[in-house]
Amino acid sequence: MSRNRWDEKNQREENVRYTEEREEVDERSHTLVIEGRNAVLEAFRSGKPIDKVFVLDGCQDGPVRTIVREAKKHDTILNFVGKDRLNQISPTGKHQGVIAYAAAYEYAEIDDMFKLAETRGEDPFILLLDNIEDPHNLGAIIRTANLAGAHGVIIPKRRAVGLTATVAKTSAGALNYTPVAKVTNLAKTMDELKERGIWFVCADMDGESMYGMNLTGPIGLVIGNEGEGVGRLVKEKCDFIAGIPVKGEIDSLNASVAAGVLAYEIVRQRMM
Amino acid sequence: MSRNRWDEKNQREENVRYTEEREEVDERSHTLVIEGRNAVLEAFRSGKPIDKVFVLDGCQDGPVRTIVREAKKHDTILNFVGKDRLNQISPTGKHQGVIAYAAAYEYAEIDDMFKLAETRGEDPFILLLDNIEDPHNLGAIIRTANLAGAHGVIIPKRRAVGLTATVAKTSAGALNYTPVAKVTNLAKTMDELKERGIWFVCADMDGESMYGMNLTGPIGLVIGNEGEGVGRLVKEKCDFIAGIPVKGEIDSLNASVAAGVLAYEIVRQRMM
Repeated sequence: MSRNRWDEKNQREENVRYTEEREEVDERSHTLVIEGRNAVLEAFRSGKPIDKVFVLDGCQDGPVRTIVREAKKHDTILNFVGKDRLNQISPTGKHQGVIAYAAAYEYAEIDDMFKLAETRGEDPFILLLDNIEDPHNLGAIIRTANLAGAHGVIIPKRRAVGLTATVAKTSAGALNYTPVAKVTNLAKTMDELKERGIWFVCADMDGESMYGMNLTGPIGLVIGNEGEGVGRLVKEKCDFIAGIPVKGEIDSLNASVAAGVLAYEIVRQRMM
Repeated sequence: MSRNRWDEKNQREENVRYTEEREEVDERSHTLVIEGRNAVLEAFRSGKPIDKVFVLDGCQDGPVRTIVREAKKHDTILNFVGKDRLNQISPTGKHQGVIAYAAAYEYAEIDDMFKLAETRGEDPFILLLDNIEDPHNLGAIIRTANLAGAHGVIIPKRRAVGLTATVAKTSAGALNYTPVAKVTNLAKTMDELKERGIWFVCADMDGESMYGMNLTGPIGLVIGNEGEGVGRLVKEKCDFIAGIPVKGEIDSLNASVAAGVLAYEIVRQRMM
């Protein structure tokens, strides 16, 4: 389960600094920035969830190599950048060639979702997000997942927003209850989940009407990216394409609204 | 119907200036600011939708009195402020004691919604928003209204976001098709709509399950404020309180997601 260790982190670590990013008119959000070789290495070793590491390009000494190795081991995104970029990102200027971005919340494992479903005596109901980029959408979807009784949310590692403080805030506390897992390859994860009995439905405005579909049983609901919808590879893994009826002139619903409409059609069918 | 007259406005009026407000990390939005006595008066007389007028406190000369009268006639919110505040708001410094904020889009009339329903041969389906404050929520709800085939969206004049450029952008074009009307008193408007045969349902997480309700016929769907839900006066005017089933630990859905889930339950029942 995801837990907020924000305060703990804040008190314990001297080398950890926070940068403030202006995200909305009247809302300020924090991103946890960890600087310096020892601090970053320690963060990896303590199991802290690191989203991204920036390493000075061409830097080859021992500690930096260890950090690169740790990053690869944890499937963390590695960015080799120039000194100017590092100085720009750095809140203190004392980065020693390494800066890491950590998530405000801990990621869960997919097994946590299956355990949760089992505890509740329900068929697994998981949301898979194919590259949601807007933190407000991700937060709203995690919130919806919790209320609709889904057992977890799976997000991809690349080209998608992670569990930032804005996501946590928009989730209205849902992040404390609903497991969120991060995977390297969504299509590959779907193959693994299929072996565990999950079948997949993705949202597409052109699909067959969701009202005529049987959406009961162990289900994975796939929600596409805000602009491009569900990617080709992921779409091919879906067993069904569920359409939300279009009665108006424009193309598609907001991603978090579409997720809500489909998740609640699943709730309705499960309640019947 | 709402029409974007942004370009027309931009070309025609010399006294109109735009201020840029930072609303998101990578999105900049424009608010139309009209300054000076003649420009503001002309804006009122041409029927431009003015959201707010700031007038120098104590200023009593002829043109200013005429502007105050026009503002009252159009039910525009009037703010009497000090010189410092005016100077602060003013993009050019040449406000002559009067600054107006205009909506990027034109508001529709409630009659437009009834006409649209009649043209389509459908029972009226209107969304009423009880003080939605977040422009992203308002935009997403207008987008949902369009796709769900609603004939219009009614918003209150006070304590709610108007049709800003951010709302227009988030609506993904829906603002060009779905009429949005602004009313002084939502509860009073509901009384008038009741006389025209509309009945009202409001969203509340504690209400009777929406799946067991008959949501067909001429309907007004009331969505509450993000923090406080539906206000007492408005709630009392509702014929039914529809609950979205809660299967999780947290309290309530995001306002735009709740609007989507309920609007599509209405769509589903109308399709049956």
